Amino acid sequence: MKKTIAVITSGGDAPGMNACIRAIVLTANRFGHQVIGFKHGYNGLIENEKVLLSPFDVQHTIQLGGTILKSARCLAFTTDKGLIAAVENLNKNEVDALVVIGGDGSLRGLDRLQKHWDGQVIGVPGTIDNDLNGTDNTIGYQTAIDTALDSIDKLRDTADAFERIFLVEVMGRHAGFIALASAVASGAEQALFPESIDDPHTELESIVQHVECLRQVKGKSSIIMVIAEHLWPGGVSDLAETLTNQIGIECRPCILGHIQRGGAPVAYDRILATKLGSYAVEIINEGQSGVMVGEINNRQCAHKLNYVYSEQKELDPYLVKIQQNLFDVVQCLNLSKK
Amino acid sequence: MKKTIAVITSGGDAPGMNACIRAIVLTANRFGHQVIGFKHGYNGLIENEKVLLSPFDVQHTIQLGGTILKSARCLAFTTDKGLIAAVENLNKNEVDALVVIGGDGSLRGLDRLQKHWDGQVIGVPGTIDNDLNGTDNTIGYQTAIDTALDSIDKLRDTADAFERIFLVEVMGRHAGFIALASAVASGAEQALFPESIDDPHTELESIVQHVECLRQVKGKSSIIMVIAEHLWPGGVSDLAETLTNQIGIECRPCILGHIQRGGAPVAYDRILATKLGSYAVEIINEGQSGVMVGEINNRQCAHKLNYVYSEQKELDPYLVKIQQNLFDVVQCLNLSKK
Amino acid sequence: MKKTIAVITSGGDAPGMNACIRAIVLTANRFGHQVIGFKHGYNGLIENEKVLLSPFDVQHTIQLGGTILKSARCLAFTTDKGLIAAVENLNKNEVDALVVIGGDGSLRGLDRLQKHWDGQVIGVPGTIDNDLNGTDNTIGYQTAIDTALDSIDKLRDTADAFERIFLVEVMGRHAGFIALASAVASGAEQALFPESIDDPHTELESIVQHVECLRQVKGKSSIIMVIAEHLWPGGVSDLAETLTNQIGIECRPCILGHIQRGGAPVAYDRILATKLGSYAVEIINEGQSGVMVGEINNRQCAHKLNYVYSEQKELDPYLVKIQQNLFDVVQCLNLSKK
Amino acid sequence: MKKTIAVITSGGDAPGMNACIRAIVLTANRFGHQVIGFKHGYNGLIENEKVLLSPFDVQHTIQLGGTILKSARCLAFTTDKGLIAAVENLNKNEVDALVVIGGDGSLRGLDRLQKHWDGQVIGVPGTIDNDLNGTDNTIGYQTAIDTALDSIDKLRDTADAFERIFLVEVMGRHAGFIALASAVASGAEQALFPESIDDPHTELESIVQHVECLRQVKGKSSIIMVIAEHLWPGGVSDLAETLTNQIGIECRPCILGHIQRGGAPVAYDRILATKLGSYAVEIINEGQSGVMVGEINNRQCAHKLNYVYSEQKELDPYLVKIQQNLFDVVQCLNLSKK
Repeated sequence: MKKTIAVITSGGDAPGMNACIRAIVLTANRFGHQVIGFKHGYNGLIENEKVLLSPFDVQHTIQLGGTILKSARCLAFTTDKGLIAAVENLNKNEVDALVVIGGDGSLRGLDRLQKHWDGQVIGVPGTIDNDLNGTDNTIGYQTAIDTALDSIDKLRDTADAFERIFLVEVMGRHAGFIALASAVASGAEQALFPESIDDPHTELESIVQHVECLRQVKGKSSIIMVIAEHLWPGGVSDLAETLTNQIGIECRPCILGHIQRGGAPVAYDRILATKLGSYAVEIINEGQSGVMVGEINNRQCAHKLNYVYSEQKELDPYLVKIQQNLFDVVQCLNLSKK
Repeated sequence: MKKTIAVITSGGDAPGMNACIRAIVLTANRFGHQVIGFKHGYNGLIENEKVLLSPFDVQHTIQLGGTILKSARCLAFTTDKGLIAAVENLNKNEVDALVVIGGDGSLRGLDRLQKHWDGQVIGVPGTIDNDLNGTDNTIGYQTAIDTALDSIDKLRDTADAFERIFLVEVMGRHAGFIALASAVASGAEQALFPESIDDPHTELESIVQHVECLRQVKGKSSIIMVIAEHLWPGGVSDLAETLTNQIGIECRPCILGHIQRGGAPVAYDRILATKLGSYAVEIINEGQSGVMVGEINNRQCAHKLNYVYSEQKELDPYLVKIQQNLFDVVQCLNLSKK
Repeated sequence: MKKTIAVITSGGDAPGMNACIRAIVLTANRFGHQVIGFKHGYNGLIENEKVLLSPFDVQHTIQLGGTILKSARCLAFTTDKGLIAAVENLNKNEVDALVVIGGDGSLRGLDRLQKHWDGQVIGVPGTIDNDLNGTDNTIGYQTAIDTALDSIDKLRDTADAFERIFLVEVMGRHAGFIALASAVASGAEQALFPESIDDPHTELESIVQHVECLRQVKGKSSIIMVIAEHLWPGGVSDLAETLTNQIGIECRPCILGHIQRGGAPVAYDRILATKLGSYAVEIINEGQSGVMVGEINNRQCAHKLNYVYSEQKELDPYLVKIQQNLFDVVQCLNLSKK
Repeated sequence: MKKTIAVITSGGDAPGMNACIRAIVLTANRFGHQVIGFKHGYNGLIENEKVLLSPFDVQHTIQLGGTILKSARCLAFTTDKGLIAAVENLNKNEVDALVVIGGDGSLRGLDRLQKHWDGQVIGVPGTIDNDLNGTDNTIGYQTAIDTALDSIDKLRDTADAFERIFLVEVMGRHAGFIALASAVASGAEQALFPESIDDPHTELESIVQHVECLRQVKGKSSIIMVIAEHLWPGGVSDLAETLTNQIGIECRPCILGHIQRGGAPVAYDRILATKLGSYAVEIINEGQSGVMVGEINNRQCAHKLNYVYSEQKELDPYLVKIQQNLFDVVQCLNLSKK
């Protein structure tokens, strides 16, 4: 049965969104479905900003950062009025299935929508934060880590030349995935993320102690701390100032910011996006609805929308352990005794 | 119990080998073990080229390509004389455990060694080819894909400007992992790898047919074919010439070659290398021997050495299917009818 | 006076061609001129494949490799028939000025054209080879060097891990600009380019001697030779085989090939392209014709078309001297005595 | 005559400093000179932290960011006591010539030193800021532009996906070189730098007007403003807040910060550093002193130290003009009329 599939990208953009749109279009085309995109996320649904998407429209888009369908955060969609307008446009355009590529907020929106619309709704995890259950990796996460890593490697050069302390703030919303991964990958001497810290202020003493211990280690020429956004009240600039005062040497803050969202996706994200986009069309063929597609243990899967955002997703416990062990205080003291 | 752990890197170098050495040294240090490296792979064992490895020696090496311990392929180690010399040096240096970071051939060598030596032997999968069972990814594989992808993206610019056909040969030994992944990630219109092709010559007709079909598609402005090394007799240059003659338009060959082995490892490989290096020390603590460490479904594991290389490792079947479907002939004809 | 300006990109594509098209369009727009592009180089002139180019069409193209106007080599344009068809289309479209972005062959073509057409003709140096007089740098040259360098840096990792000899073939047509620059920038131990070698075969002995000298130097762990394309009969693979036989250790060839043409242009090329594109429009306003724009000593200039390709452009003599001196045989012997 | 040449790197580190040290060592070695390095800039002179530098010590350092000699800013050197200690150590080590690789402050320090010491003093321009007369480019400048550009390209993806306004703060001390170049290269719609703005507050109205004009332009989907550090009181975050309030749409700040100092140098900087390092040794051979080496119009030169920092270095006036013209208000209005 030929269907009309609508696609939107919503919320913070993530590298690989275009690769996913492309896979949806190419796969849908194979089954004879028609694909339309709505621009600017849910806004486009409400405003009926639609575009036809043929295989030619997505040619050579697999490597593009951002999203050719544009994105937005949409307050109107949280209102009944907005929701109703969206449903009307979906019906008017005879849409059979809506695919939303986005993160936590976008999938919550989709969950609300399915209560008011009869069509199939499918979520695809597109966010650099990796904070969704139901998939090992979200589209964009690996690219964001590599972007952060590239910057931290550069900071290491300067940190090392000056034997300095750098505090690097990375993204991740309320989760520590990017912070933990970029810290381990860069050999950062410390990582602070929400899952590891209860109350930042009570932790200050142990942070200071850790830094001073590291500095006592002969030959340790620079220190890099990776800190998750939203962790420290006042942000990393405030923490840098606090540490500078306590330790007596200059600690420099660096906020990586929005560069972490952009850029050509790495192979991992292009492949994941291609697989999940194809899989989304396949389960539309099967008649599924109300689920987010994902990949767990290298196999495609689908989970109820409310499952994916209800609970805090767990960090890899082995990675948490390694980051703590490789640079813990005992280690430092062992080193310093040599 | 304090141990002496020896480390070598062997066979083709892979990005992340240094990150792995570093993790072994830092983790061993935490348990009070001593680490020594032998240089130039098994040659260094035979020649007793040893160096002490302290945490300071591995500082800021996590991002380095190549291997600080050098590597080599070692014919001498396949002889009894070489094997005996290696065992003597291991004993003379009171080595308790030997960790070998390498690929297929290196792990076969380690399997032979364990029959002649009482110490613990641990393999770590370090090869860009990803052709070892017992782990989802080998160290270096993801970086090699991204390096290949970066080149293919550049070729696409030129291919597209000239509306040309490019044949790109990638590495992978006798397996199609790099070819398949870099083809999907680059949106290559065709991928040829050992697992998909029985007899290349009988396939020529279908290759030609596929290209001609793609070219009929209005708007398809360039074609990129990714081909695994060793696949086509005479190599990609020969295939390019054959296709040029058959199709009547110029097909250009490009052999990516050894650039795929070098460069700073991507985050994925640094993290995998750090985890597997740490895990190798942990299972040395447990007294294990004769195994290769790996990571399957995001969990660390260890498998008998002869298991990892005995059977051909399977490609991701879903990825194989996608690569075939996205650009198959039916698809082409659908497109061309529009 | 409002004019109609036509633009084509011709010959081998070069990173920065799009940045140049963009600058032409934005600058022309400022003066109220209309810009049209012909696709596929001179072929598009002959076939009248024209597209209108507005500021919106070139938005966000400054970073794109390749050329949005496509390129081609055009045999038909070397015939009278082709030339006449081109002139007819220029007149039919009421073109006042034609800008050709390309290299040696493309500018020769433009020189021929101006003898048969009354409009203004302006060349812009767009080629990675940097082999045009009348400008210090051609558009695309700096990017090609950085692309080659990135690959050679990666090869160094492997060369060093294996203490190997790598022979890297880079582009440059009949000139050594890319070879010399990428050799100096990568610290290559030897560079062979047309300007430095009269008869390759008589040089073989000195090449072998140089390599053997380098190898005697204690601690010299790898050797990289950069070789210009077209230099060695049979190419770098043949030279590698010859050297392997003579020296007795394996020398590996690596042909960088067409990746050197692609990729996002570096800042230097985007800026140069933007300046030269703007300047081309400015001298069209002044009524100039028959010249190629360029930049010498950081100032924009224009030279007669036949000047720019008539004589072999000279390499930077100081750079030639440095490359020879830093690794000459005397140097080697000094080192080896230590 | 064999000499002892001392080298330091001082002030903010810049990519290419290691390439320059390497060139000094290799060239000096060729003439039989001895090279010693003092670590941590002038501090190392005062504290006599010296290391011997042989050709082997600089092998494979050409591609490294940061500085193997470490750097520092040195307050002690501004005092007589510090100066005297430095002179004593230079004499004690029988140094004939001191080469300082650094920026404005470091060369001022060198100028002071030469009044108290009889040896030869040579400056080399090593700073990302490009704010020294006597050379067209300083070592590190081109790399810093490309690093900034890479980040701005990534921000463009997100800016475009969200149709947002981004304000990007780049480095440059009190000069607009990085801001102007990265703005032109990224196609930024506006650039604010010290040379273009007298009093930022009186400019606010024209900034707002410019942004509003750009936004009226149909199809202009995102706006990027590049702003030099130290320009706006309160920094780019303050300006973003001010603009957000005035324009009524969210303007996001992004401070690129210290990543601009790190990373592997691009080919341009490696080549420049190699030339200037070699040239520094050559003019030491000639007996010159009290000068900074540089390259103007592609030729090596040497200027008195006090010349290079006495006057504000001029931006490329053609580039300033282009940046203003390509996006000026008239242009905008032309566009919006279509």
